Amino acid sequence: MRVAVIMGSTSDVDKVAPAVELLKKYGVTVDVRCLSAHRAHAGLSAFMEEVNGNGTEVVIAAAGMAAALPGVVASQTVLPVIGVPLSGSVLDGQDALYSIVQMPPGIPVATVAINGSKNAAYLALQIIATNNAELKAKLLDDRKQMEEAAMKANAEVIERFR
Amino acid sequence: MRVAVIMGSTSDVDKVAPAVELLKKYGVTVDVRCLSAHRAHAGLSAFMEEVNGNGTEVVIAAAGMAAALPGVVASQTVLPVIGVPLSGSVLDGQDALYSIVQMPPGIPVATVAINGSKNAAYLALQIIATNNAELKAKLLDDRKQMEEAAMKANAEVIERFR
Amino acid sequence: MRVAVIMGSTSDVDKVAPAVELLKKYGVTVDVRCLSAHRAHAGLSAFMEEVNGNGTEVVIAAAGMAAALPGVVASQTVLPVIGVPLSGSVLDGQDALYSIVQMPPGIPVATVAINGSKNAAYLALQIIATNNAELKAKLLDDRKQMEEAAMKANAEVIERFR
Amino acid sequence: MRVAVIMGSTSDVDKVAPAVELLKKYGVTVDVRCLSAHRAHAGLSAFMEEVNGNGTEVVIAAAGMAAALPGVVASQTVLPVIGVPLSGSVLDGQDALYSIVQMPPGIPVATVAINGSKNAAYLALQIIATNNAELKAKLLDDRKQMEEAAMKANAEVIERFR
Amino acid sequence: MRVAVIMGSTSDVDKVAPAVELLKKYGVTVDVRCLSAHRAHAGLSAFMEEVNGNGTEVVIAAAGMAAALPGVVASQTVLPVIGVPLSGSVLDGQDALYSIVQMPPGIPVATVAINGSKNAAYLALQIIATNNAELKAKLLDDRKQMEEAAMKANAEVIERFR
Amino acid sequence: MRVAVIMGSTSDVDKVAPAVELLKKYGVTVDVRCLSAHRAHAGLSAFMEEVNGNGTEVVIAAAGMAAALPGVVASQTVLPVIGVPLSGSVLDGQDALYSIVQMPPGIPVATVAINGSKNAAYLALQIIATNNAELKAKLLDDRKQMEEAAMKANAEVIERFR
Amino acid sequence: MRVAVIMGSTSDVDKVAPAVELLKKYGVTVDVRCLSAHRAHAGLSAFMEEVNGNGTEVVIAAAGMAAALPGVVASQTVLPVIGVPLSGSVLDGQDALYSIVQMPPGIPVATVAINGSKNAAYLALQIIATNNAELKAKLLDDRKQMEEAAMKANAEVIERFR
Amino acid sequence: MRVAVIMGSTSDVDKVAPAVELLKKYGVTVDVRCLSAHRAHAGLSAFMEEVNGNGTEVVIAAAGMAAALPGVVASQTVLPVIGVPLSGSVLDGQDALYSIVQMPPGIPVATVAINGSKNAAYLALQIIATNNAELKAKLLDDRKQMEEAAMKANAEVIERFR
Repeated sequence: MRVAVIMGSTSDVDKVAPAVELLKKYGVTVDVRCLSAHRAHAGLSAFMEEVNGNGTEVVIAAAGMAAALPGVVASQTVLPVIGVPLSGSVLDGQDALYSIVQMPPGIPVATVAINGSKNAAYLALQIIATNNAELKAKLLDDRKQMEEAAMKANAEVIERFR
Repeated sequence: MRVAVIMGSTSDVDKVAPAVELLKKYGVTVDVRCLSAHRAHAGLSAFMEEVNGNGTEVVIAAAGMAAALPGVVASQTVLPVIGVPLSGSVLDGQDALYSIVQMPPGIPVATVAINGSKNAAYLALQIIATNNAELKAKLLDDRKQMEEAAMKANAEVIERFR
Repeated sequence: MRVAVIMGSTSDVDKVAPAVELLKKYGVTVDVRCLSAHRAHAGLSAFMEEVNGNGTEVVIAAAGMAAALPGVVASQTVLPVIGVPLSGSVLDGQDALYSIVQMPPGIPVATVAINGSKNAAYLALQIIATNNAELKAKLLDDRKQMEEAAMKANAEVIERFR
Repeated sequence: MRVAVIMGSTSDVDKVAPAVELLKKYGVTVDVRCLSAHRAHAGLSAFMEEVNGNGTEVVIAAAGMAAALPGVVASQTVLPVIGVPLSGSVLDGQDALYSIVQMPPGIPVATVAINGSKNAAYLALQIIATNNAELKAKLLDDRKQMEEAAMKANAEVIERFR
Repeated sequence: MRVAVIMGSTSDVDKVAPAVELLKKYGVTVDVRCLSAHRAHAGLSAFMEEVNGNGTEVVIAAAGMAAALPGVVASQTVLPVIGVPLSGSVLDGQDALYSIVQMPPGIPVATVAINGSKNAAYLALQIIATNNAELKAKLLDDRKQMEEAAMKANAEVIERFR
Repeated sequence: MRVAVIMGSTSDVDKVAPAVELLKKYGVTVDVRCLSAHRAHAGLSAFMEEVNGNGTEVVIAAAGMAAALPGVVASQTVLPVIGVPLSGSVLDGQDALYSIVQMPPGIPVATVAINGSKNAAYLALQIIATNNAELKAKLLDDRKQMEEAAMKANAEVIERFR
Repeated sequence: MRVAVIMGSTSDVDKVAPAVELLKKYGVTVDVRCLSAHRAHAGLSAFMEEVNGNGTEVVIAAAGMAAALPGVVASQTVLPVIGVPLSGSVLDGQDALYSIVQMPPGIPVATVAINGSKNAAYLALQIIATNNAELKAKLLDDRKQMEEAAMKANAEVIERFR
Repeated sequence: MRVAVIMGSTSDVDKVAPAVELLKKYGVTVDVRCLSAHRAHAGLSAFMEEVNGNGTEVVIAAAGMAAALPGVVASQTVLPVIGVPLSGSVLDGQDALYSIVQMPPGIPVATVAINGSKNAAYLALQIIATNNAELKAKLLDDRKQMEEAAMKANAEVIERFR
């Protein structure tokens, strides 16, 4: 299991970290890169060539503002590319959301919520799990735990307002 | 190869059709349903149980307005769920975009452009191709054709403005 | 008098509390739950069945981001459902507002202001009062006090700027 | 069963008519008025006094642009007031939505979708049904029919894409 | 010279104060009130009757959220009414701006910037000055001072970046 | 009674005409100009000098897109300036609204609704009427007729839905 | 004088044509291309290398939706790049505007209005004119004619409303 | 090499400073001014006359709210004018963005990101470099360093997540 995680700027590290941690927790090999579509064009292309040949299954690309990164990444691979709009500017990520989700026909980017890097990781896991019964079982188990945690939270809320 | 395509209303048929056609062109078995999260709750749950057991690899869910469908579908499976916001209301799909992309942690929806059902199909194909070398080769070929078509269009534009 | 109050996440407790307090002040039995439409699907359905059979008169559902909860609740009851959009994300509740208010025909959600849980409680009381003369009298009295408080505030403002 | 339906302008007649028709279909007495909060201030106050004394159970108020009508109506009654934002201006109802839903604490307006007059009627029926077992049974039946229609539509869609 | 300044809530005092101070500096008699359109309906109507008979020349009305106040005030007078949208909610005054500026034909509200109470005062002064040569001279002098201050600031900026 | 009406482009003629007609109906001398702040800078300045010396009481300025006209006009006079945002671009006047209403302190523009030229005229009349008892009486009479028309429309709506 | 004009899709031809025509009218050699950043990556890079070596002075890039083209172009040259957001999607160019204007530090794109290709051409001419006295004189003359046309339009408007 | 930098208010100094510093670092003579389009009309016109005659090659104009400054500057010169929208108001620069970018045909403003003064300086340098081989070489070198810095940041991120 191998996922590439690319961010556009070092200022995105903290917003991207939750995705990396979650993927590692599930035993995924994660190749993390900081390669701006605008400032590291050649480096990005080189890395994408690597990605296309090293068994990577999913690419996660996170960027803020005029977030071209996920789309440019998507144009260089037929692997599923997950885009994470980041809230780096005064526009609170609305600019990045439009820049990432409104891709033209032929080159899709699977967009998650603004700052939703954790869900990007979950989505990557679910994609890998389509062909990995063990991981799928773990994700189903995770869902069960999520539901149990939710029901426990419910019990606490009931108590809190009794 | 099997993909489920769910729309929220019969008025979405024309906006969803391009996804179905593209998937079929690639030889994917497509189970198309019209099951509103709000008006066909039981039917949707029943179908999702089916989906979870019949070898479906990806689910595409398209909806407009307060588009709960993709999220509700995502909560009932660990298969990758692709959400397509549709422009059914006077808000031109901005409402559906927010309703679909802003999912809470744990239950991701892979969101594509407003009315972007064709890209939903491409994304589904790319997900399936992570474990299907033949399909992957076809997608790479499709990209090459896409690029050739783009270069041919470029030649025509050059001619047009000469 | 019985009202169910459902929130989507424990992080919503403080934003929902004013509704619960106001309802209790008026002698309403309040069943508070934390049941995400996405993470506690079964628990939510079970609770809604309860709600439909235990004499509950109104349901209040509060959620942020892709706030599917109020709509999903509304699809499982013909009791009036009041939706409270919460400002949980960087989009300041605009996402939740669209997700809650833009319901399709047939399944209405009575939407109040972003973070407007207090008004959700008032609305619930007004609905119950349509068939409860005593409560109606109390609400009319409350309005009179509200007006008196407003006029007292007016007197203070006059003084402040004299 | 009695509901008041107030619109702000004669140009709203067609957008409000579906609410009136639905209510009448359920045997509700409907008092329809066209009383702008800005241009028919006295007439509106007079009608609201009537409404408060003639057994009306719910008020529906529909308006576009700076849609003050629902809020002004709500300030003159403790009956539940349902607000319908209308898309009368170039802003497509976004202005009316904000003007109606963002009410201050104490005076709630139950807001439905932009141009959602049909849902306003359903919500009114659901409010009346909290104290009317016969109507509640009808609404539950309506939901069942809605679901059957949805499943029939589903069958047609299945056929369409077979 | 007499101007009425009405705010919708005591929480608006600090945002409205600059208008009052500026008006007083110019020798205007200012009647400040806190009269919500929704919670102090009768008090507001009573005050507007006063306003219409006591020689008031302009009314300034400031409100946040579903800011009905300026429009309701405008419907009760043919004096010029200046509306000030306030940023009281999570929507940063965008809700109040739409609620105030998008008035229907016949009942205008002269809207200024969000939180622009100082400009509301200047506008009131300019309106009064259309028939008050002395005040007009003062305003022209104020503009000259404004320009001198601007040129002095310019000189400082030149120095700062030399 | 004299009002200057300035538009930014000849394409605005039809949107501005209702203001001119209404003003003329009330016997106001109207000086209509088409003077872009960007393309007719000198002509605009020359006209504003004229305006400042010929007894004009109010200036109405209407413009679309980056609508600098009303603000530039306001910077050249202490007469009240009314700004009308026009819906000339794909942004439906939202751009013009922000460009006109968000003026900095010291130079107010009295902004009316998008395409609200009729209300600009009413506002101009109300400003003139602060010092013109005859006009004020006419405006009060107009309001009475407006209310009578509203009540007549109400009667028709009652009939329509009987 | 040489300007490159790149559009992202053949559907943009009509929106881009006014720029090409204007440039040609001024005697500029225009190299027009249709090279999507996403679908013609290699072709775009090849063309940009050409552009960087053939004496081109300015690049105009026009694109709709997630308009990555101008930014990607800008990352491959230090020539001034002018971006034209196009209104290709249901979001009316708001998506393209954000995608183009919100560039990160270091790689600027000179953004013009949505569908503002004519101004892109003017801006390109003005840039070339910084080092071309003859063109500068022509542009100054053009401005004079623009102003004369504006004053003639003004005269017509005066006549129209006399 | 000479660039004029104009801001609309002294409160913009810190947001504009990065542009001035960058330009000076490249040896550009920078004339910085604080000249509001609304409050320093004559001073601005006088400075623009100067600018048009003293060899200035580019003008940068930065302003917030109803940011008329860049457009007004552009109307007084055929030099390239770069507009920087500033986030001075509660609308976070969205108002300034629309006011600057949506210029009418004939008078372009080269708009950069909200608060993007650094990119305004880069764009100015790129414009000057179209006719300055030495500067162009420096900018190409700067790009190379930018890329090296990006690759170094990449190396650090790789290390951080190893």
